[in-house]
Amino acid sequence: MLLTVLDLVGIFVFALSGGLVAVRKDLDLFGVLVLAGITGLGGGFMRDVLIGALPPAALADWRYLLVPVTAGLATFWFHPALGRMERLVNVFDAAGLALFCVVGGLKALESGLGPVPSALMGLVTAIGGGMLRDVLAGRVPVVLRGELYATPALVGGTIAVLGVWAGVDEVLVAVPGAAVCLVWRLLAMRRGWAAPRPSGAAST
Amino acid sequence: MLLTVLDLVGIFVFALSGGLVAVRKDLDLFGVLVLAGITGLGGGFMRDVLIGALPPAALADWRYLLVPVTAGLATFWFHPALGRMERLVNVFDAAGLALFCVVGGLKALESGLGPVPSALMGLVTAIGGGMLRDVLAGRVPVVLRGELYATPALVGGTIAVLGVWAGVDEVLVAVPGAAVCLVWRLLAMRRGWAAPRPSGAAST
Amino acid sequence: MLLTVLDLVGIFVFALSGGLVAVRKDLDLFGVLVLAGITGLGGGFMRDVLIGALPPAALADWRYLLVPVTAGLATFWFHPALGRMERLVNVFDAAGLALFCVVGGLKALESGLGPVPSALMGLVTAIGGGMLRDVLAGRVPVVLRGELYATPALVGGTIAVLGVWAGVDEVLVAVPGAAVCLVWRLLAMRRGWAAPRPSGAAST
Repeated sequence: MLLTVLDLVGIFVFALSGGLVAVRKDLDLFGVLVLAGITGLGGGFMRDVLIGALPPAALADWRYLLVPVTAGLATFWFHPALGRMERLVNVFDAAGLALFCVVGGLKALESGLGPVPSALMGLVTAIGGGMLRDVLAGRVPVVLRGELYATPALVGGTIAVLGVWAGVDEVLVAVPGAAVCLVWRLLAMRRGWAAPRPSGAAST
Repeated sequence: MLLTVLDLVGIFVFALSGGLVAVRKDLDLFGVLVLAGITGLGGGFMRDVLIGALPPAALADWRYLLVPVTAGLATFWFHPALGRMERLVNVFDAAGLALFCVVGGLKALESGLGPVPSALMGLVTAIGGGMLRDVLAGRVPVVLRGELYATPALVGGTIAVLGVWAGVDEVLVAVPGAAVCLVWRLLAMRRGWAAPRPSGAAST
Repeated sequence: MLLTVLDLVGIFVFALSGGLVAVRKDLDLFGVLVLAGITGLGGGFMRDVLIGALPPAALADWRYLLVPVTAGLATFWFHPALGRMERLVNVFDAAGLALFCVVGGLKALESGLGPVPSALMGLVTAIGGGMLRDVLAGRVPVVLRGELYATPALVGGTIAVLGVWAGVDEVLVAVPGAAVCLVWRLLAMRRGWAAPRPSGAAST
């Protein structure tokens, strides 16, 4: 029950970020709804397709469809206010990231994957929706070029997956895994940490 | 039988639109064939992947592969004539849209999805190929920013899906569902109807 | 055993090409690793999703994940040297193409698809990763607009698939299929062969 609520909260904030990108790209109402839906649900869809858990959970439960539609409509009508609350949206986005990397990784582990690919599926769950959002909006995915975003998700998911794989109780590792991801990501945002770049000039 | 013929007609006209985009982007023969194939078959592939109906029907029936190849070759050789017939191509495209939203939605319902996600799968079937076409051609999908295109498909698919779900005979709801989508889309084209846009300046 | 080694070599060289594109696009370390992984594994993932062989083999065998990570790190640190070895990388890339079109096609045939869609799945395996790489890097896929690249893969895969389908021993057709693809591609690179383009001006 708690997990479902957290899952829906994560979808909601990711969908808000998709809707805001759509508004800034001057897309129409439908574009806002689609980008909100794909950003909120896309990572989970990718994970479910790759682990063969079809149809994805989000297509079997109407709440998973209602949440991104609500977020999309909220963005469409209240985007100036949301734009001013960008700091708050970013904090929620970090929470969504922390949640999805853990939930996604554990779901993959449960489906029978080994721990390494499961942690990878946690990462796919956490960043897949945002990557689809950026490709559809016509830009190189932020996660590939911007701040430190994916590494905290990979590490947080790995903690949770390795713990459960080693036999530790789920809650005892899910909470620290998500916490590491969340705190790391919030610090990266506040301090402007970035992933390292290739040295030297691009050798074109 | 009739459904299969209509399905193939829909694939053909969607594939034509993909081939025309490829010609305008100055792609080579292979690019024309690939964009034609992906535009014609991509929406159905997405639906089949998400509902777990694998391999997709189009990979089990050679006619589904022959049709987009034919459309791609036709575009490659006759694109100046096709460009002049753009109005006619657009009418066929609207017919493909009307058909795919109904057929796709009913196929998802048959696979066991509920009515709301089934209508969504109808929409995915109808617009997925065009979205892939635009992403591969390096542009933001037309359906997210342009004219009224997706709403008629969503409404048409919903009519058909809700009807069958409520126990009405398939033909009795498939025809009106497709008709609503077709007429609405044709009117939107003729009158330049567009989906609403977010108010105010984009809050970048 | 030999097939697995060749498969891993193909993934490695494709991953190198993905990493080099990421470096040239000035992505960060994570972007380099993601583009390397998606380029190396994306085509096989697409094939496995479409034929319903889920989860993909690469998620069940840690070597398939280790190889693209190694290639990504190599690109990140040694990209100036790799840039100078571009000719060599291109030869390896042609070898990867030749291998993937045959292995992918035969895997699809084994899963129960007919020969024509199987040859198509061989093509998807061979070019899918590079297409994802280019879309994520924000450019129209090279394979749609550049040199002769896809046709050799389609022909090579078709030779292998048709041969096995007709009852010939796998090795007796896999080797010639891959050889035709490899030699054709190398000749196309050396002589600058290109696929035909649409005649006349684009009819925009």
